[in-house]
Amino acid sequence: MTALRIYLAGPDVFLPNAAAVAEAKKTLCGAYGFEGVSPVDNEADTAGLPKHEAALKIFAANERAIRNCDSLLANLTPFRGPSADPGTAYEIGFARALGRPIFAYTNVADSLLERMRLQAGNRLVRRASGQYEDADHMAIEDFDCADNLMLVGAVEGSGSPIVMHATAPSGRYTDLVGFEMCLKLAASHFKLGRRAASAGNL
Amino acid sequence: MTALRIYLAGPDVFLPNAAAVAEAKKTLCGAYGFEGVSPVDNEADTAGLPKHEAALKIFAANERAIRNCDSLLANLTPFRGPSADPGTAYEIGFARALGRPIFAYTNVADSLLERMRLQAGNRLVRRASGQYEDADHMAIEDFDCADNLMLVGAVEGSGSPIVMHATAPSGRYTDLVGFEMCLKLAASHFKLGRRAASAGNL
Repeated sequence: MTALRIYLAGPDVFLPNAAAVAEAKKTLCGAYGFEGVSPVDNEADTAGLPKHEAALKIFAANERAIRNCDSLLANLTPFRGPSADPGTAYEIGFARALGRPIFAYTNVADSLLERMRLQAGNRLVRRASGQYEDADHMAIEDFDCADNLMLVGAVEGSGSPIVMHATAPSGRYTDLVGFEMCLKLAASHFKLGRRAASAGNL
Repeated sequence: MTALRIYLAGPDVFLPNAAAVAEAKKTLCGAYGFEGVSPVDNEADTAGLPKHEAALKIFAANERAIRNCDSLLANLTPFRGPSADPGTAYEIGFARALGRPIFAYTNVADSLLERMRLQAGNRLVRRASGQYEDADHMAIEDFDCADNLMLVGAVEGSGSPIVMHATAPSGRYTDLVGFEMCLKLAASHFKLGRRAASAGNL
């Protein structure tokens, strides 16, 4: 029987040890009966190409990989700001429109509003409407959500909550406890037996 | 004849005058023969709902609106960091998987790498591999791209470049010159005649 394939989206592709993290994720996928498919594998074949051409080649390979997968598991840990990596957000939207179930975790366990409040030193401005806004006067979503409501809707619309598991800052992009909890949710979704027990960090 | 419908994605939904900006965008859409569809219109019908339920209702309405549109026009202006709003990124991915052509503009005309370099005061760390990385040791894409390569690929894969039009900081989220340039590209894509001339800021 061919294993169900899960596309592994997340900013961990930008880690110095991205290939090792991808391998660790694939190993965990295997333990739950899945085949993990990482975008890291699509970066190898671009040597010698002009930069922009390399980007478009990786893009096309990533889209193809998502189409060829049965599901998507995303790392929504905030990246360069209070929200998820936009490439990951793109891939979630892409998979969602294809009808693939989405699973997601974040290694920072606050709502978007709580994170913005901490960042602003508890001095968020409030509009007459009651909405909070940031220093650019842009409204901060106040929906008890981990991130932008489109990301939350895509995951919850697939039948599972976003797994929120706070980690130490040093493990923010490498801790795989939340990732493994997503695999359990995915296995339950697809009704696979759990083939092995394993959890932890890189 | 029914006008072709364009979904208007972007962080301008978070502006204090979001409804006015959405109306200005719709008016410009009309001038080019399109019907503009704004997610702002999906926020009205949530009064009295628990927060999280309101979020999921807006999410579902936005996805439905994208499905009912022929195209998507995104504002990729950096939002709370060096990259586009993740909700916008999600919606681009969703529309792309449905086969809708994507048009996009940004009111900050630098590559992602240039923005990160400015932010770091020209002191970016370089890896032995030649890749640049940020303070979290995460690689910075160096592909001559305005943002994450998935967003760039989605727009260029639809046949148009990302419109980059630098504006004054005060007009960062309201300037509509780049938006109108996208409408011209969309009109050309769909081979519509231009029905009126208009450009400028709110």
